[in-house]
Amino acid sequence: MTETLHSWQDHGCLATYTRENGSFATVRIYPRGVVLVDFQCSDEPEEKVSAKHLLNKIEEKMVETLHNDISQVKRLPAIGRGASVDRYWPTADGRLVEYDIDEIVYSKDSPYQNIKILHSKQFGNILILNGDVNLAESDLAYTQAIMGSGKEDYYGKEVLILGGGDGGILNELVKLKPKMVTMVEIDQMVIDGCKKYMRKTCGDVLDNLKGDCYEILVEDCVPVLKMYAKEGRTFDYVINDLTAVPISTSPEEDSTWEFLHLILDLSMKVLKQDGKYFTQGNCVNLTEALTLFEEQLSMLYCPVKFSKEIVCVPSYMELWVFYTVWKKRLNS
Amino acid sequence: MTETLHSWQDHGCLATYTRENGSFATVRIYPRGVVLVDFQCSDEPEEKVSAKHLLNKIEEKMVETLHNDISQVKRLPAIGRGASVDRYWPTADGRLVEYDIDEIVYSKDSPYQNIKILHSKQFGNILILNGDVNLAESDLAYTQAIMGSGKEDYYGKEVLILGGGDGGILNELVKLKPKMVTMVEIDQMVIDGCKKYMRKTCGDVLDNLKGDCYEILVEDCVPVLKMYAKEGRTFDYVINDLTAVPISTSPEEDSTWEFLHLILDLSMKVLKQDGKYFTQGNCVNLTEALTLFEEQLSMLYCPVKFSKEIVCVPSYMELWVFYTVWKKRLNS
Repeated sequence: MTETLHSWQDHGCLATYTRENGSFATVRIYPRGVVLVDFQCSDEPEEKVSAKHLLNKIEEKMVETLHNDISQVKRLPAIGRGASVDRYWPTADGRLVEYDIDEIVYSKDSPYQNIKILHSKQFGNILILNGDVNLAESDLAYTQAIMGSGKEDYYGKEVLILGGGDGGILNELVKLKPKMVTMVEIDQMVIDGCKKYMRKTCGDVLDNLKGDCYEILVEDCVPVLKMYAKEGRTFDYVINDLTAVPISTSPEEDSTWEFLHLILDLSMKVLKQDGKYFTQGNCVNLTEALTLFEEQLSMLYCPVKFSKEIVCVPSYMELWVFYTVWKKRLNS
Repeated sequence: MTETLHSWQDHGCLATYTRENGSFATVRIYPRGVVLVDFQCSDEPEEKVSAKHLLNKIEEKMVETLHNDISQVKRLPAIGRGASVDRYWPTADGRLVEYDIDEIVYSKDSPYQNIKILHSKQFGNILILNGDVNLAESDLAYTQAIMGSGKEDYYGKEVLILGGGDGGILNELVKLKPKMVTMVEIDQMVIDGCKKYMRKTCGDVLDNLKGDCYEILVEDCVPVLKMYAKEGRTFDYVINDLTAVPISTSPEEDSTWEFLHLILDLSMKVLKQDGKYFTQGNCVNLTEALTLFEEQLSMLYCPVKFSKEIVCVPSYMELWVFYTVWKKRLNS
């Protein structure tokens, strides 16, 4: 191995080793006693084995040389970079997590967003919109939570779904015999991908845009909501399943919070006095964003109350907050 | 920045840049068109901000220079290394996952294992034994699964727990008014740590080794099982909550599978003819290990049947398999 060495006056040193086969290692020794070793090689099986041996040897050697002074040794799993199948989809709170993804099932850019459906060995197919894990076939817990966790009676009710292009909510709803479900999803290409590759989630409800008790409008929900509000059309339930970062054709709302406020206000306008509004909030760790959302709830045209629930959605790898919002009765 | 450059004949090149403040970057250009950039710096806030700016600039510059040829750009969250609080606890199937751990609550070496209880913002305290995530305060799902997912009637029954030092199973069991629960946990220090720091899991059941309907034996379960088998003592339920990698004082069993076989055989001996044996299996992705376990089930002294269930345990970040085993009736 060829070695180059760089020493700082007060910051320790860095040794770089290169091998003929193109692999290389850096060893960074910090004055406070931390030694960081990185080894980079191709993903050829023999190189990976050789890397493991080398790291074992380095570890043995260091333990041998310094054993009484080593308080901790930690080796992290190799990070696969530049692979055709990307396994790293950080959580909403910014943590690095590796998924067991082994196949790109669908990958398209729609006029609105980048749509990926990736196959995970344990979670089934996962829908990823603009890099955000939206829903996996394992995530019935998400759908149940955003429908009120089994505590609602949808029989004979009128329901409005905003977004929901994966079909999960619609599929569960129609089983409960509602009077009518209207779903407003902006992106036909999300529907097309999910119809084909997320069937454990959507069943056959996306095969047709109209069914016995449902209708799918492939439209931006903002003008639709405005129209319903103007017409005085109301619903027993409004379920907001829009993506966390909004996509819309209406240019008037220029910030996420303004868009969110608009949707909330319009949703309350089309919600019956004793109706319920369900939505997903955010990762439980993003307390600031959750507080900002709750502040929005206090600034709507009508006074509302809310409750929240923390739910484990399998493919998220973080706990998620779901909200129920309802109109305050005048005497409450 | 100071630069050194290494070129391979057929493997591209590596540039190393060092900064006066001790930070450094490597840029590895592979002939097939992958460019991997690594930047390493201290965790001083200003250095982290400066690193972000630098990476932004590199990305802009590369997009500018090569924009029509870049098919993908991916930046991973920074990896915190050499920190006093370790946030990386890989899954059973070897994937890299970062936890939101912010505090070491308990860290001791017992005669049997390394015991850590770490605080996670979302999962509460997490018990980690020999580097394996065992149970977090958020993980009632684990306890419910290993008790038969709410389908059993424990009222008036005799139950044996093997391991279970976190107290989760015992705490849930005593609420169901069993006749008697005997728990055999080898490691007093696990009990001591959990009694203090996992109270959402164990409640107050670990405060005393004896209660109205339970008794905790701080012993290796192998001799206890042998004694019960000899005495002819039997149980309605045996719940095996031992760690995946066995710890025992009995030197006779030298491999994991032999130990597992011994525990299974002895457990069947102390199980009533119509009793049930519950245990956790493994990560759903480790199909080979699961198959080997199921093979063990076919090699016991008495014929058994089994069923399995896949459960999402919040802090595991991977789906987990749980087994129910029962004795075959002679005429079945």
